[in-house]
Amino acid sequence: MAGSSIGTIFRVTTWGESHGKAVGAVVDGCPAGLSLSEKRIQPFLDRRKPGQSRYTTQRSEADRVEILSGVFEGKTTGTPISLLIRNNDQHSADYGNLADVYRPGHADFGFDAKYGFRDYRGGGRSSGRETTGRVAAGAIAVLLLEELGIRLTAYTRSIGPVKISSFDESQIMKNRLYMPDAEAAEKASLWLEQCMKEQNSSGGTVECLVTGMPAGAGEPVFDKLDACLAKAIMSIGAVKAVEIGDGIAVAEATGAENNDPFLPGGRDSAAVRKASNHAGGILGGISDGSTIRIRASVKPTPSISRVQKTVSRTGEAVDLSIHGRHDPVIVPRAAVVVEAMTALTLADALLCGMSARLDNVKAVWKR
Amino acid sequence: MAGSSIGTIFRVTTWGESHGKAVGAVVDGCPAGLSLSEKRIQPFLDRRKPGQSRYTTQRSEADRVEILSGVFEGKTTGTPISLLIRNNDQHSADYGNLADVYRPGHADFGFDAKYGFRDYRGGGRSSGRETTGRVAAGAIAVLLLEELGIRLTAYTRSIGPVKISSFDESQIMKNRLYMPDAEAAEKASLWLEQCMKEQNSSGGTVECLVTGMPAGAGEPVFDKLDACLAKAIMSIGAVKAVEIGDGIAVAEATGAENNDPFLPGGRDSAAVRKASNHAGGILGGISDGSTIRIRASVKPTPSISRVQKTVSRTGEAVDLSIHGRHDPVIVPRAAVVVEAMTALTLADALLCGMSARLDNVKAVWKR
Amino acid sequence: MAGSSIGTIFRVTTWGESHGKAVGAVVDGCPAGLSLSEKRIQPFLDRRKPGQSRYTTQRSEADRVEILSGVFEGKTTGTPISLLIRNNDQHSADYGNLADVYRPGHADFGFDAKYGFRDYRGGGRSSGRETTGRVAAGAIAVLLLEELGIRLTAYTRSIGPVKISSFDESQIMKNRLYMPDAEAAEKASLWLEQCMKEQNSSGGTVECLVTGMPAGAGEPVFDKLDACLAKAIMSIGAVKAVEIGDGIAVAEATGAENNDPFLPGGRDSAAVRKASNHAGGILGGISDGSTIRIRASVKPTPSISRVQKTVSRTGEAVDLSIHGRHDPVIVPRAAVVVEAMTALTLADALLCGMSARLDNVKAVWKR
Amino acid sequence: MAGSSIGTIFRVTTWGESHGKAVGAVVDGCPAGLSLSEKRIQPFLDRRKPGQSRYTTQRSEADRVEILSGVFEGKTTGTPISLLIRNNDQHSADYGNLADVYRPGHADFGFDAKYGFRDYRGGGRSSGRETTGRVAAGAIAVLLLEELGIRLTAYTRSIGPVKISSFDESQIMKNRLYMPDAEAAEKASLWLEQCMKEQNSSGGTVECLVTGMPAGAGEPVFDKLDACLAKAIMSIGAVKAVEIGDGIAVAEATGAENNDPFLPGGRDSAAVRKASNHAGGILGGISDGSTIRIRASVKPTPSISRVQKTVSRTGEAVDLSIHGRHDPVIVPRAAVVVEAMTALTLADALLCGMSARLDNVKAVWKR
Repeated sequence: MAGSSIGTIFRVTTWGESHGKAVGAVVDGCPAGLSLSEKRIQPFLDRRKPGQSRYTTQRSEADRVEILSGVFEGKTTGTPISLLIRNNDQHSADYGNLADVYRPGHADFGFDAKYGFRDYRGGGRSSGRETTGRVAAGAIAVLLLEELGIRLTAYTRSIGPVKISSFDESQIMKNRLYMPDAEAAEKASLWLEQCMKEQNSSGGTVECLVTGMPAGAGEPVFDKLDACLAKAIMSIGAVKAVEIGDGIAVAEATGAENNDPFLPGGRDSAAVRKASNHAGGILGGISDGSTIRIRASVKPTPSISRVQKTVSRTGEAVDLSIHGRHDPVIVPRAAVVVEAMTALTLADALLCGMSARLDNVKAVWKR
Repeated sequence: MAGSSIGTIFRVTTWGESHGKAVGAVVDGCPAGLSLSEKRIQPFLDRRKPGQSRYTTQRSEADRVEILSGVFEGKTTGTPISLLIRNNDQHSADYGNLADVYRPGHADFGFDAKYGFRDYRGGGRSSGRETTGRVAAGAIAVLLLEELGIRLTAYTRSIGPVKISSFDESQIMKNRLYMPDAEAAEKASLWLEQCMKEQNSSGGTVECLVTGMPAGAGEPVFDKLDACLAKAIMSIGAVKAVEIGDGIAVAEATGAENNDPFLPGGRDSAAVRKASNHAGGILGGISDGSTIRIRASVKPTPSISRVQKTVSRTGEAVDLSIHGRHDPVIVPRAAVVVEAMTALTLADALLCGMSARLDNVKAVWKR
Repeated sequence: MAGSSIGTIFRVTTWGESHGKAVGAVVDGCPAGLSLSEKRIQPFLDRRKPGQSRYTTQRSEADRVEILSGVFEGKTTGTPISLLIRNNDQHSADYGNLADVYRPGHADFGFDAKYGFRDYRGGGRSSGRETTGRVAAGAIAVLLLEELGIRLTAYTRSIGPVKISSFDESQIMKNRLYMPDAEAAEKASLWLEQCMKEQNSSGGTVECLVTGMPAGAGEPVFDKLDACLAKAIMSIGAVKAVEIGDGIAVAEATGAENNDPFLPGGRDSAAVRKASNHAGGILGGISDGSTIRIRASVKPTPSISRVQKTVSRTGEAVDLSIHGRHDPVIVPRAAVVVEAMTALTLADALLCGMSARLDNVKAVWKR
Repeated sequence: MAGSSIGTIFRVTTWGESHGKAVGAVVDGCPAGLSLSEKRIQPFLDRRKPGQSRYTTQRSEADRVEILSGVFEGKTTGTPISLLIRNNDQHSADYGNLADVYRPGHADFGFDAKYGFRDYRGGGRSSGRETTGRVAAGAIAVLLLEELGIRLTAYTRSIGPVKISSFDESQIMKNRLYMPDAEAAEKASLWLEQCMKEQNSSGGTVECLVTGMPAGAGEPVFDKLDACLAKAIMSIGAVKAVEIGDGIAVAEATGAENNDPFLPGGRDSAAVRKASNHAGGILGGISDGSTIRIRASVKPTPSISRVQKTVSRTGEAVDLSIHGRHDPVIVPRAAVVVEAMTALTLADALLCGMSARLDNVKAVWKR
C-alpha cells in the first residue's frame, strides 16, 4: 500500500497538495514508441479544470502540463514520464479560519487522526486538486488504449433528481454539465440554480463506456478487471458507490433476465457476440469483448456556505460557515477523472495480461 | 497484479479449483502472538458451505480446514500460515456436456479468451469453491481485528424484491437466509420457492457493518480504505456493485442532507462523534471512528435449468440446459465471504498504517 | 514486503517450517499451456535433499511433491499452481535443549527479537527445509525457460580452499559435491574429511551459468536484472555475497581490461556479439544476450558439534554443544537452490518485460 | 516490477534522464512529523556531484534540490514528498557521434534491445545522473533513521590495487577520494594519475557501516534485510558484487572461525552482544543489533578516451573514441549513493516490520 501509487506494470505515482508549489505524476511502464507531447495531454486537463461554468469554482488555474522526462523525439522511451503542473491560484487567505476546525464531509478529521496534524490549507493532499496528476497520467493511458482501438466515453448521467433519458454523444461537450442529453442538461441547470440559492450543493452520477476492449483482460481472482476498476473509481474523492453493467439492479433481477445469451459471429478471434449486456462487458472478472459500462455515484460537495455544526481540534462545539470558493456540483468535472482512472486500470490490465499464454511469451522472447 | 494475492503487509494468496484435489490459502504477515487453531477457523467455513438449506446446492463438502504451518503452541509465529481444505464432492459427471460450450453469465468464455483453454469442470478457478480459501484466511483477519476491539456483522439485506425493514442481529443465524428480520426472511423464502418452480434464480444484497474501527486507517490517495474495500468486495464472484454508507443515494442528496455534522465527546483519542453517518464510517478515504457500512449487490446465479441460447467453442449456436446442481440464490452464502474480504482489507490497512506517525515508529524501534 | 513472496507477474509464495506438517509453494502467473507434472518437478527436489552423501545430513525425507491445483490434462491452466511436500523426518527430540538458547550463526536470536518468540524446533521457518518450496517452484520456472531456449547450469565452484581449475559439465552429476572438475572434487572430499574430524564445517561458492537468454530483460533502475538476481540469491540462507560476471575482481581492473568490445554478427535480432564477457551477460541492468554468470559465497554451516559460547534467552552465558544432525558443508545442496532462484528471477523479468515495446503490446492485444 | 520504484511502505520513485529538463524523486510513506527542508537534503547532493576533484567530471551542475510537496511548517505531513533537481549542464554536442554506436560497458545496447530505440544523449535514463534522485530521497531516509539513533557511514575502501589499512572516520571528508586513511588516499591518487595518463579508468570498492540498528528488522524469507540491501546496492550502476559482513571470505572459512559467539550484556532489550561480527550485523536475514557492514565492488568507468572496438546499430564494426567528459574513477561519488540506497532499504524494513508483534499492533491501534 504505497497509497500514492496505482498499477503494477503501468504504474502511476501522483504527488502534490492544494497549496504546495505544484502537483504532478510519474508514469512508469508505458511502452516505448507511443507518440506523446504536452499538446496531446493538455485537452484532458482543460476538461477537468475549474472556472468552466457558473457551477464550478472560479479558481483561475492555467493547469499547463510540462513533460520533464520519458519522451524523446516525440515518442515515449519506456522510461518514467514525469508530469508537472504548477499551482497558481491558491488563496491561502480563504482558509484562515479553518486551521483548527474539522469541516463536515471533508477529510480534515481523518488526516489529523492518521498523521497527528495536517496541512489545513484548502484540503492539502485530500483536495480535489490532486486529481490533476491523475488526469494527466490518465491521458497517457487513453492515448495508449487508442493505439489498440479502445475508446472511452465518460459523461454525466444524472445530477440530483435529473437523469438523462436519451443518449447523443455529440451533446456531451456542448453543455457545461457534460450530459449527452440537452434537455436533461437544461433541467439540471435549473436544479443547480435552486441549490445555489439555498446555499446548498448536489450529488450525481458519472458513467463511462469503453468500446473495442479485447476479451481476456483481468486477473482472477483478486485483480479481476471489475475489482480493479472499482478500486480506481472509488479512490476518486466524493465517490460512494461503483457499479458495473446493470449495477445495483442485478439484486432484483432473476437469472433468466440477467444472463446475457451468447450468439454466433463476433468481432474478435473467439467470435462471440451477446444478445444483451447486463454484465457490462466483464464476466468472471475478465473482459468479454463487449462494451464495458461503469457508473460512479458522487456525493454532493461538502463545502457549502450554510452554517454547519462541527468541532474544533480541541473538541469544542463550533458553528462553521465556510467562506471562499466552492462548487454546487463537482459531477461534470469528475467525468474526466473517471475516464482517467478507467484508462489507467485498463492499460495496466492489458500490460499485465500479456503473459497469460505461453504462445505469446514465445512470440516475444524466443530467439 | 499477481491475481491470486491481495494485501500488502497482511497478504493472502489463495489457490485451488472446483475439481482439483484441494483448495487453500497462505496468510503472510499476520502478527505473531495471535491465538489460532483449526477450531477457531472452522465456524466461518461452516457458515459458507453448501447444503445448508433447501436453497443451497446439495453438494456435501465437509470443508474441514487444516493448518499446515505458522502456528506454534497455539499462537501465530509471524511466519506464513498455510491453510488447506480438501475437495471431496466433485461430481465430474455433472459437467460432461459443458466442455465445449460457454455457459451464459459464467466466466467460461473469459477464461478461454485469456488462456486459450480452460478447466471446464464446474467452473475451475472461477468456481464459487475458491471462496473457501478466502473465508479461511478472512477468519484469521476477523480474529486479529477482535483483538483490537473491532467487530464485523454481515447479513443478507435483500433477496429479489424483498428487503429487510427492521434489524435484529440475533435473527441472522436463526433463519437459513441470514436475514436480521424474521418476517422478511419468510417473504424471501416464498419468493425463492417461486423462483425454483420457474427454474429461475434470484439476486440480492449483502451488507456488512464494522464497529470499533479506530480513526486513521486508509492510505490516500489510491489505497483509500473505501477503495480497497471496493476492490476486495467486487472481486467476489457475482458482485456487480459496491456501496459505502448511503451509497447510490448520495447522488440524489444535497450537501446539507449528506454532510455528517461533528459533535463533541467521542470514543477515541480525537474525541469526535458525528450526528449522522451518511458517510458510512469513511471520510476522505480514511476511517473516522464511526460504524463502517458496506453493501454489495449480488447478481442472480447464472446456472439455471431453463434452456438458454449460447455458442460452442467453435462458434455454433447451441441450446443449453445445465443439469446438475445449482443454487436459486447465493446471497446468504456470500455474506460470510463479504465479511471475510472486509476483514482482510481492514487488517491490512491497520498494519500498513502503523508507521503514519514518527512517534509510533520511535515507540516501536528506538533503542 | 510480503516476506514470503517473490516476483511481480511470475509470483511465488512459499510456506512451511522444519517441523510443521508440510512445506510448499504457490506459483501464480505461470503462463497457460506449459507441460507440467509431478514427474517433471521431482528431479529438482531429488538434487536438493539430504542424505545424498556422507557430507550431508542423514535425514531421510522422501520429498515427494504433489501438485494440488493449476494443471489440467497435463498443462498449466494459468491459474495458481499449489505444490505440497509433506515433512516426514522431524526428530523433535534432537532439539530439546535448544528451546532457550541462541545458536551462534543461526537466526534464533533474530526471530526472537522480531516476533517475541519462535518455533525453536530445528530452526522453524529459518530452517534450510523452506528451500524445498523454492526448489519446487523454481523447477516450474526452469521448464518455462527451456521453452524459450534458455538453459541453466549450477555447480559447486569451490569448497573451502579448493577451487575448480577446469570445467567439464558432465562431471557435475558424477560426484557428490556437484563439482565440474573431478580432481577438485577429490581434493575437496579430503578437506571435508578433515573438517568432520575436527567437528568443524566449511564454506564454499556456487556458480550458475545461463545460456540462451535473449537481450532486453530487466527493468531499470531498481529492478535491474542483476539487482533482482542479487536479492533472490542473497535470500538463500547462508549466502553472504553475490557476484555478477567478474564480480569483486572488477574493483582491481581498469576500463580497458574490463570493457567487453562489441563484434559484428550475433545470435539475436540485434546481431551483437562480444569479444569477452566480464560483464557476465548483464549490462546496465539489462541482459545483453551473452552468458549470464552469477556467483554466491556460502558461509560454513553454523551447526557444529564443538562447544560454543552463547547465551540463553534470559541473558546468561551458556556453553552449547549442538547434538543431532548437521552437515559439514551445504554448498552442493545450495547449487540447485541457486539455480531455482535464478530461474524464478529470469522468468519474472521476461514476463514483466513483455510490454516494453508498443509493437509487442499491439501484437498481443489489437483486435 | 515497476522498475523506477523501490520499497513497500517507504516507497521511492525516481525519474529523469541525463539530458531531460530535470531529475527527481517522489518519496511516499515517510512518517509525518519529521523535520525536513531543502537545507537538510542539500549536503547529501553536494557530496554526490561532479567537479569536486580532478578525478571527477568537470560538469558544472548546481544540483539544487526543490521540495514541491509533502512538507508543511517544516515537518513532513505523511503525504508524498516530491523532490526536483533541474539539469543545467547538458553538453548535447558531446554526444553527437554516439547516436548510432553502442559504447562498450554501457547500457546503450541493452536499452535498444529492450525498447527498440533509446535517448542516446549522455546515457539517457541509464546515466549516472539518475542517482541524483536516489540521493535526494536517501537523504530523507537518513534523517528518519537518525531519529531512531541509527547512523550510516559510507566511504571508499579501495581504488584499484590500493586498499585502506587503517580507519579514521575524520579523514573521510578530508580527501577527495573519501578514504578514511590519508596514506591510502595519497597512493590512490598516484594510481589515478597513472590511469589518466594512460587514458584509462579504475574500479574500487565502497563500504558502508550502520550503527544503532535495532535487532529484528527484515522479513524472511524473500525480503530478508541482506537480500533487500543486495538488490538496492546492485541496482547502482557499475556495481558488480555485493558483500555482507565478511562477504566472499566466508567461502574459505570454517564454522568455528565464522560463527559469532553470543555474550551476555548488550545494548537493546534482548540484551545480547557478540564476540565478533563476521555476519556483518545480519543473521538469518534479520538485523541482530550489531554493526551492519556492506561492501560494493564498482567496476571501472566504461567511458575512456582510448579507441575501442564496437559496432553500430546496423551491425558494422566501428572503432570508437569517446570524447567529451568522463571520470577516471566514480568510486568516491558512489559512496553517498551506497549510503542512500542502504538508508532507503533500512527505513523500509523498519516501517514494514512494525506489525511483527500483536502487542505493537495493539499499542498503536487498540481503542
